[in-house]
Amino acid sequence: MNNPSVLAFAASLRAGSWNKKLLAVAAPQLQALGVEVDVFDLFAANIPVFNDDVLQKEIPSGVADLKARIHKASAVLIVTPEYNYGIPGVLKNVIDWASRPPPTNPFKGKLTAHMGATPGSAGTFQAQLQVRQILSVGVAAWVLPGLAFGMSHADQAFDASGALIDEAAKKNLSSFLGRFAEELKAW
Amino acid sequence: MNNPSVLAFAASLRAGSWNKKLLAVAAPQLQALGVEVDVFDLFAANIPVFNDDVLQKEIPSGVADLKARIHKASAVLIVTPEYNYGIPGVLKNVIDWASRPPPTNPFKGKLTAHMGATPGSAGTFQAQLQVRQILSVGVAAWVLPGLAFGMSHADQAFDASGALIDEAAKKNLSSFLGRFAEELKAW
Amino acid sequence: MNNPSVLAFAASLRAGSWNKKLLAVAAPQLQALGVEVDVFDLFAANIPVFNDDVLQKEIPSGVADLKARIHKASAVLIVTPEYNYGIPGVLKNVIDWASRPPPTNPFKGKLTAHMGATPGSAGTFQAQLQVRQILSVGVAAWVLPGLAFGMSHADQAFDASGALIDEAAKKNLSSFLGRFAEELKAW
Amino acid sequence: MNNPSVLAFAASLRAGSWNKKLLAVAAPQLQALGVEVDVFDLFAANIPVFNDDVLQKEIPSGVADLKARIHKASAVLIVTPEYNYGIPGVLKNVIDWASRPPPTNPFKGKLTAHMGATPGSAGTFQAQLQVRQILSVGVAAWVLPGLAFGMSHADQAFDASGALIDEAAKKNLSSFLGRFAEELKAW
Repeated sequence: MNNPSVLAFAASLRAGSWNKKLLAVAAPQLQALGVEVDVFDLFAANIPVFNDDVLQKEIPSGVADLKARIHKASAVLIVTPEYNYGIPGVLKNVIDWASRPPPTNPFKGKLTAHMGATPGSAGTFQAQLQVRQILSVGVAAWVLPGLAFGMSHADQAFDASGALIDEAAKKNLSSFLGRFAEELKAW
Repeated sequence: MNNPSVLAFAASLRAGSWNKKLLAVAAPQLQALGVEVDVFDLFAANIPVFNDDVLQKEIPSGVADLKARIHKASAVLIVTPEYNYGIPGVLKNVIDWASRPPPTNPFKGKLTAHMGATPGSAGTFQAQLQVRQILSVGVAAWVLPGLAFGMSHADQAFDASGALIDEAAKKNLSSFLGRFAEELKAW
Repeated sequence: MNNPSVLAFAASLRAGSWNKKLLAVAAPQLQALGVEVDVFDLFAANIPVFNDDVLQKEIPSGVADLKARIHKASAVLIVTPEYNYGIPGVLKNVIDWASRPPPTNPFKGKLTAHMGATPGSAGTFQAQLQVRQILSVGVAAWVLPGLAFGMSHADQAFDASGALIDEAAKKNLSSFLGRFAEELKAW
Repeated sequence: MNNPSVLAFAASLRAGSWNKKLLAVAAPQLQALGVEVDVFDLFAANIPVFNDDVLQKEIPSGVADLKARIHKASAVLIVTPEYNYGIPGVLKNVIDWASRPPPTNPFKGKLTAHMGATPGSAGTFQAQLQVRQILSVGVAAWVLPGLAFGMSHADQAFDASGALIDEAAKKNLSSFLGRFAEELKAW
């Protein structure tokens, strides 16, 4: 039997994104737990702002690529910043594109999880609530139960090589990824 | 003393948007109540997907225009579709742009209100909750208290000329706009 | 193999509760789909307002009974009114009691679903979002994906015998219960 | 002109509640800023679990007292724990009682604010989002804009006399109460 696989992406276009750093730390951890990880690069995908008039004519190639790779994966992991204590527009935009038209929604019935990092002190949990609402109600995905991983003070959490040096964050991240991997294997 | 003014926009890029139709009905009603209305055209503004690296270099002209017009207005009215039972990516994207950098956030302390239309049957209320959370917590605006106006079955609510023909919707919309105008005048 | 089972309750103490009527209609439908239903009577359970000082001394018997019956069931179905467009205090109070102390939380990892009825026109969906947040994040349950069943105008939906006479509601309820039963059997 | 006044309460029945300690610190700070504070004791009020059948007959005396004191105050301050990452049942229960019947809802149009303390690390912000939704949409109150005060690690934040000794918390609390007092004076 093949290993379970996760399509993962950081919901930020910024080159120095803390969430990209977090995903760079998390991906090898998941692999060490026996989970294949396919990292989708949102910046490279160059997905425009959603317009249903455009969708009626043709699906942008970056969106088509994302949908195909989600369909292929066992699960999805979204690594999200918090903008204005809510879901980033860039993340909701990607979900709006990928979920339409409804019969092609790749999230439906799929196992999903989310986590996030912020240089602030409120852990991205308010953004994550909106992400969870949209995954669970909106695109009809299963969402990993329980509080997900949220990293505060991300600007002090990594060393220059990108290694995670915040001990509490390391422990909480490992615990979260462990839960996710366990569910993935039992899925 | 001048009349109070509202910067209003429909959070959809689609030409045939039900929310544009709703705003087209609401604007003259607000004007009849003594409120100036400045309608911002989101499609024409051509606002890209938010990227903080871009923001550090220059603010897109559509964003700058929106911010200037919000600063000038007494209040903001957002007319929002519901995508995946949540805030549209296009709307959160605009708020993410306009609110940064924080000292230039034009929503701060401003009176705001939101409403929405959907061809579905759940009234956009789940999207509106996310919009309210972002306005109230995220960009530190005052939000008109109470349940806002939500229109279900929008595809049957207008006649060919764009007039609102759903009697319950007409009544609820008038009541909502009346409350908003009253607060605006007392603001 | 035994049939899957559901512990179900209506989150209202009112004798004439619309949500009790809704559950009375739903329970035989679930049974017809091959699901055992154990209806918990919240009024009879006489659960007090949560106080952790009391919990440290002894767990109220109604709470102990609920927890034991949830542990025994394959899944939980909560039928909830909407009070002030949010979760009823009575429902959150029951969840607060049942989930503590954490090692005894009977919701953890359990399949759950929620639905609701209101005489109003907004379908209880705003209450349901709060219920879902608490089930999914708070007590670490799996929540049935997708929009759940919400009944507006409940005061016109039943005949004097308690039968459901609103055709759209009948159809949506059957569809929702069918999805739930299907997941339960595959669980 | 009289000073503005705030009806404040901690939404916990526990004698050693962190939120009672937080309110005990906050009340004299508000008074020093020129705001009268009326602290309502939820435990002493002995408010039962909401049942509309009871409400139709008579309003519990603790509820009647709370409503009268809210009506008299310029504003309301709710100090809330986070239970299961959501609003405490005890708090929603009080709001459900106080807001009914609708013509007697004392929150309507009133200025409100909320804050909270938790021994955990996520600051009560997920509970506060639910509180804000209910205040703003549900009972039609104005809610102080912006992120409110949330205290993590409350078990390490006070000394034996109840003084606040966490320097970051002290600063954030002062800033929050200052914003609240300023709005109250301009209200």
